[in-house]
Amino acid sequence: MLLVHKYGGTSVGSLERIENVASRVAKAKDAGNDLVIVVSAMSGETNKLIEYAEYFTKTPSKREMDILLSSGERVTASLLSIALQSKGYDAIAMTGRQAGIITDDLHTYARIESINTQPMQDALKEGKIVIVAGFQGINKNGCVTTLGRGGSDLSAVAIAGALKADACEIYSDVDGIYTTDPRIEPKAKKIDMISYDEMLEMASMGAKVLQNRSVELAKKLDIKLYAKSSFSEGEGTLITKENNIMEQVLVSGVVLDKNQARVTLRNVSDKPGIAAEIFTKLAQENINVDMIIQNVGIDGSTNLGFTVPQSDLENAKRVIEGLEHDIGGMDFDKNICKVSVVGVGMKSHAGVAAKAFSTLAASNINIEMISTSEIKVSMAISAKYGELAVRLLHEAYGLDA
Amino acid sequence: MLLVHKYGGTSVGSLERIENVASRVAKAKDAGNDLVIVVSAMSGETNKLIEYAEYFTKTPSKREMDILLSSGERVTASLLSIALQSKGYDAIAMTGRQAGIITDDLHTYARIESINTQPMQDALKEGKIVIVAGFQGINKNGCVTTLGRGGSDLSAVAIAGALKADACEIYSDVDGIYTTDPRIEPKAKKIDMISYDEMLEMASMGAKVLQNRSVELAKKLDIKLYAKSSFSEGEGTLITKENNIMEQVLVSGVVLDKNQARVTLRNVSDKPGIAAEIFTKLAQENINVDMIIQNVGIDGSTNLGFTVPQSDLENAKRVIEGLEHDIGGMDFDKNICKVSVVGVGMKSHAGVAAKAFSTLAASNINIEMISTSEIKVSMAISAKYGELAVRLLHEAYGLDA
Repeated sequence: MLLVHKYGGTSVGSLERIENVASRVAKAKDAGNDLVIVVSAMSGETNKLIEYAEYFTKTPSKREMDILLSSGERVTASLLSIALQSKGYDAIAMTGRQAGIITDDLHTYARIESINTQPMQDALKEGKIVIVAGFQGINKNGCVTTLGRGGSDLSAVAIAGALKADACEIYSDVDGIYTTDPRIEPKAKKIDMISYDEMLEMASMGAKVLQNRSVELAKKLDIKLYAKSSFSEGEGTLITKENNIMEQVLVSGVVLDKNQARVTLRNVSDKPGIAAEIFTKLAQENINVDMIIQNVGIDGSTNLGFTVPQSDLENAKRVIEGLEHDIGGMDFDKNICKVSVVGVGMKSHAGVAAKAFSTLAASNINIEMISTSEIKVSMAISAKYGELAVRLLHEAYGLDA
Repeated sequence: MLLVHKYGGTSVGSLERIENVASRVAKAKDAGNDLVIVVSAMSGETNKLIEYAEYFTKTPSKREMDILLSSGERVTASLLSIALQSKGYDAIAMTGRQAGIITDDLHTYARIESINTQPMQDALKEGKIVIVAGFQGINKNGCVTTLGRGGSDLSAVAIAGALKADACEIYSDVDGIYTTDPRIEPKAKKIDMISYDEMLEMASMGAKVLQNRSVELAKKLDIKLYAKSSFSEGEGTLITKENNIMEQVLVSGVVLDKNQARVTLRNVSDKPGIAAEIFTKLAQENINVDMIIQNVGIDGSTNLGFTVPQSDLENAKRVIEGLEHDIGGMDFDKNICKVSVVGVGMKSHAGVAAKAFSTLAASNINIEMISTSEIKVSMAISAKYGELAVRLLHEAYGLDA
């Protein structure tokens, strides 16, 4: 089999851990696989380099940042290659450029446009284990670019797609995706299989195991994606397309997102185009608006409520204060959280949402906002009830069984 | 003027020091100069990365080492560019590849074959300060290569040559070349001007301010080379061709090299080709043989003496023990040092060597070996007399005047 492995910062966080990764890779090679290994920078390195740059200015040039930040993954890639060679394995380290990764011009948040797989294929044909520095590529002018936070996941998935690999295994310090955060609900169970869409809903809401863009790309390219631990054995969680999952469960998981703030705009003119203008302006500032609720208008005006990440709240205030339209007033509430129930089974089963509402009601937890999609129900509630709500819902849907 | 500056590891050894370098560069820009700045890795970084690699094996692949080691200079180059930009200067960081530096295939000790100056010239034309990651390039296959220890000096001189710069200024933590090591003789004086050849003799014998290959290249390309301090003002030392130095002094400096060991081979067959075989074998092992003395043969055999760096001594023993010819025996003496008097004036003045011998004789210092070139006299003496001999010779040639 041709496998792409990706090892995150914690998995390569020390020389001992790089040695451990080398042993795991060696074992996979001994089992007869062809291997491309994508690595992140050693944990802490990228943050250290960002701090270095911020010593000089809070707004360093993105072009220079990419030269700076791309150095961390090069260190890990060459060290892992050296570690494998010292064990007698034929390995070759490649920078993003050497691995043929071409991106657009968007420095620090570039998108992969194409991969010239020839160098990797040549090395694989010679029986070599290919080690690729993740998170980086070059643009058409030959400038170094990076792919944004978690970009090594993206490198791995894109390479798996370009090489038509049999699977892409993402290694971190957790052994898979859980029905909910085990720190909140110790009865949480590891999920064996989950669909791309469920994973996207869970990741965007706080399950930080896989970078969202990489799950999207895996879905687009139809790549079997595994979330595994580099510190233990075990099958991890397979993220795949819905059709591959034989026994579809009703609900896959419950997710808590505490990084939300609610914004309420009072007495907004109830005319066409006003909501559009507000949300366009927020989008232009890269503010990620999530739940949106508009009450039916009374007397030509309406209340408009939505949630934004807490870190974007100050920015959102600024945008709204700059609007030309009359708005009666603004309220902000950082004291909320969002609890979501995710499951592809919802598509074909009625009553999933109703069960969530009644479960919270039975414990006198007031639901302030609701938003739903085909495969999830999200509820904004008072922050203090977050963990309790997770445990109640986890039990209600039989996830601890 | 178009100037190339090079800042060494100590000069960029911390964020504060990078800020200091940015201020100096800004001042040179304000004075109306066009500037290309070549930087080393922050001091300690390269050694740290070597230690990382040696955790896995004492003989890491040189190709992988080049990817590993080249990361340090990229960090400094991007940080210095960010520091200059934060002061309002238009700067652009370039990796060795982006600066167009093409080398041969000799990983970890590559030679620069050509420089495509277009990217640097374009940036200079736009008024930008060009910051180049030193010590690195790529070979014709696009693999990262490095230029060996002190290779950033070489990058700077080669760039100065390719751009036809008016001068190349090498900044370190010392303010120039001295008549001898001031830690041995406090009366040592900074030299204002020195010829390339004298600098080569002094550098190869222990004055570690400028990398030797870079002085050779500056001589070949006829580049005015300055050794200056990044921690103080001052003109430093100009290294230039002999003709440019109006008032030629008899002796420029006295150098002590304590890293020498003497090897004596007793009763070597006095036949043609034997010495050649011995020294060829040593050269093949990259052992740098320095002073060689062969006594007149008696009874068809002879004694052969030479010095090697102490770090090569074990290697040299191994080579000699592997020789097929009969050698009566080997002696080794690590307890020696080499004192050298350097000066282009020797070419036209007799008696310089004689003065050295009589100076040491007057203090009862026994000279064990002698070797001379057109512009230097070297003497091997007992290690314990090294510092004393330097002070006696420094005074005898009037260098403290």
